[in-house]
Amino acid sequence: MILKSESFRLERIVSTGQATPLGEWYDQDEEEWVLLLTGGARLLFEHKTEAYNMQPGDYLHIPAHCRHRVEWTDPRQPTVWLALHYPNRAKKDT
Amino acid sequence: MILKSESFRLERIVSTGQATPLGEWYDQDEEEWVLLLTGGARLLFEHKTEAYNMQPGDYLHIPAHCRHRVEWTDPRQPTVWLALHYPNRAKKDT
Repeated sequence: MILKSESFRLERIVSTGQATPLGEWYDQDEEEWVLLLTGGARLLFEHKTEAYNMQPGDYLHIPAHCRHRVEWTDPRQPTVWLALHYPNRAKKDT
Repeated sequence: MILKSESFRLERIVSTGQATPLGEWYDQDEEEWVLLLTGGARLLFEHKTEAYNMQPGDYLHIPAHCRHRVEWTDPRQPTVWLALHYPNRAKKDT
């Protein structure tokens, strides 16, 4: 955890070759914005056929409840992510 | 501007050798969190004697109304910053 306020949290995540277990998907209540700082990764969204290959400097918005998985991270070097989590806008007024 | 919600905004800023004009300070109403993605920079805070030399991957929290200036950015290459601005916690309940 790098930074936390009532309205968001910012995390630094390090992967070295990890991927989401086969057949599993992340389904998050919060919006997420991720930036790849070092390494490399491949993300897959359930509703899209093509995967996203991410290189350092690439970023991506993952809407709440948009099912996704990490297909691959570079096994040869640490993949460092910056992830910003914040509430789903659709829930803001509830 | 990369991303904006009611509670924060995330910006990508590119400097190539720019610095804060001599004798001027930034004094911001909002909290800021900055990450240096590429290049290099030197930041100075009014209340500290030593400057911060920032390299790729370095990040820094700049509290609201903490007067600071950018002394130097690398003139030989673009310095890319990621800046997250969010409300001053002290003002949250007003």
